Amino acid sequence: MTSSSVNHIYPVIWQNDKVFLIDQTRLPGEYSVVEISLCEDMAQAIRTMIVRGAPAIGVAAAYGMYLGAKEIQTTNREVFLKKLEKIAQLLRETRPTAVNLFWAISRMLKIAYESVGNVEQIKAILLETAQAIQLEDLKTCQAIGDNGLIVLPSEPTKLTILTHCNTGSLATAGYGTALGVIRSAWRENRLARVYADETRPRLQGAKLTAWECVQEGIPVTVITDSMAAHCMQQGMIDAVIVGADRIAANGDTANKIGTYSLAIVAQAHNIPFFVAAPFSTVDFSISDGSQIPIEERHPSEIYQIGNTEICASGVEFYNPAFDVTPASLIKAIITEKGAISPQEIINYRRELAI
Amino acid sequence: MTSSSVNHIYPVIWQNDKVFLIDQTRLPGEYSVVEISLCEDMAQAIRTMIVRGAPAIGVAAAYGMYLGAKEIQTTNREVFLKKLEKIAQLLRETRPTAVNLFWAISRMLKIAYESVGNVEQIKAILLETAQAIQLEDLKTCQAIGDNGLIVLPSEPTKLTILTHCNTGSLATAGYGTALGVIRSAWRENRLARVYADETRPRLQGAKLTAWECVQEGIPVTVITDSMAAHCMQQGMIDAVIVGADRIAANGDTANKIGTYSLAIVAQAHNIPFFVAAPFSTVDFSISDGSQIPIEERHPSEIYQIGNTEICASGVEFYNPAFDVTPASLIKAIITEKGAISPQEIINYRRELAI
Repeated sequence: MTSSSVNHIYPVIWQNDKVFLIDQTRLPGEYSVVEISLCEDMAQAIRTMIVRGAPAIGVAAAYGMYLGAKEIQTTNREVFLKKLEKIAQLLRETRPTAVNLFWAISRMLKIAYESVGNVEQIKAILLETAQAIQLEDLKTCQAIGDNGLIVLPSEPTKLTILTHCNTGSLATAGYGTALGVIRSAWRENRLARVYADETRPRLQGAKLTAWECVQEGIPVTVITDSMAAHCMQQGMIDAVIVGADRIAANGDTANKIGTYSLAIVAQAHNIPFFVAAPFSTVDFSISDGSQIPIEERHPSEIYQIGNTEICASGVEFYNPAFDVTPASLIKAIITEKGAISPQEIINYRRELAI
Repeated sequence: MTSSSVNHIYPVIWQNDKVFLIDQTRLPGEYSVVEISLCEDMAQAIRTMIVRGAPAIGVAAAYGMYLGAKEIQTTNREVFLKKLEKIAQLLRETRPTAVNLFWAISRMLKIAYESVGNVEQIKAILLETAQAIQLEDLKTCQAIGDNGLIVLPSEPTKLTILTHCNTGSLATAGYGTALGVIRSAWRENRLARVYADETRPRLQGAKLTAWECVQEGIPVTVITDSMAAHCMQQGMIDAVIVGADRIAANGDTANKIGTYSLAIVAQAHNIPFFVAAPFSTVDFSISDGSQIPIEERHPSEIYQIGNTEICASGVEFYNPAFDVTPASLIKAIITEKGAISPQEIINYRRELAI
């Protein structure tokens, strides 16, 4: 990876035997870093979305596993593994939808079980594995960016791309998935402008994606989620690229709430709709999207704005954090293995490495 | 109109030779009333959305015309009419999209020109006409409510209806258009629940529609605009009803931003999509929706939440207040004349009374 092609926002940093997380709940008003040295603090950081974005959650959870392992006071391998299972469970329960969380935790557990050394040696291998997961994600995102360039529309020369939520450096180890493709397009002079859905209720588009674009000088226009269809009708959008939290074996894709709506309106305007995600986002244990658990978050994300409650008392709320886009609406899933049609995902099952 | 069928929220009240407006920018946190005795203050109240909603704007502008007429210091009929034209122009320039504004102003101007009396007599007739416009709108909304009941799906017995923005008592002289149909359904025991899109950027759904529903005990669930498609996919929605700011002769309908997106996703789920509006919302001078002027409002409606700016500096914004839904996506336009298929609107041209 050349330094010119990667910006230097890293949401998870390992330093001095601790994890430092950019506090994503405070951006863009305040850039602050939270120091994490206990597993429970990492679980809380994932729950409260100090760190968010499916791949970034995977990296954070991997380090969470190591921090938890460090806390285990035993030299007995069996006792250690039993306690590590409990740590894995604690971290699994933080958020239900993004598969990267479960994938990273499983990989950490598996390496612990497969390691032949003593407890201290296993701990060292767990740290190496967390670091490997982080580095691999960075390389994976770079490959996703490059593969995206191949499938983006060839006309016009400079594209206007709409995206949803934040899928950038902040959502990954660095570089980004959907925003990684956008970054690559910008580097290759293929990008005119990004339209960023503000992404209610938590406004990750307005707060995080727009901030990342400004850091790199990428022209960015923020719209409310409800304006995307109108922009398409006006001929302002050439392609839509979003990330993914979990992809079923048939290509159905769970992503931030609002993605499904965007996919329908893109199809209505014959605008190509792409998903960009590491291949580890595919969950082959799930045959279609209806089986993906959808996290419901607290209604205050809808009714509370700053310190003000905007709704009358007596009003009810529904706050699903994700929705499922059927494979039929997705032109290609852009992974580090290439841009794959969702129907072909199943053919890659044998390549499932982990 | 029976008192049991009309709730008692009136956004525009004429009393003691003054207009009192419910300040809709402060609801639901604060119920306050603004006193208006000058035409310029009424223009400002419309611009800043103290009064909003297409039919309510029409009523407010009619009273604005009268308040302006009162300020004219002349007994010369020609001078009076010339000055009244200027007042009309001031009011016309407050908001560009809702046709009810232009319709009400034209009707007031026309009656002034057609009146044979002296200036004082014309002023008296203008007041009578503004009051007539207000009363007619109340009756119109009641009729829209009744006509809506005829076209709502007959199954299930109790419907769950999704709506967008606020089209209730606050948006009209009273009772409401789309929310008027919902009110009528509730009265007739045909309603299970309302889903109210929060309606970014100004949140009229979360703030006003939810408040009106709570006032009457109608069960209401607020969702973000981006959740509507997911709710439809989950089988939670039986019908969608929205209002209209201007309807072209071919049935294309301009309404609050996000309506077009909603119409597309409703069609994708085979859910009937209705527009409810007074017949005066039809603008026969416009052949299709592409000719409807779309107001762009200040970007701070997107980036400013309370006193906080949520976006990094350097970010750009696009803030269209309305969008246009093609007639092909609308099952029926529910008016006081009946529920009309959008393609049939043109046949009613000869009935254009005013």
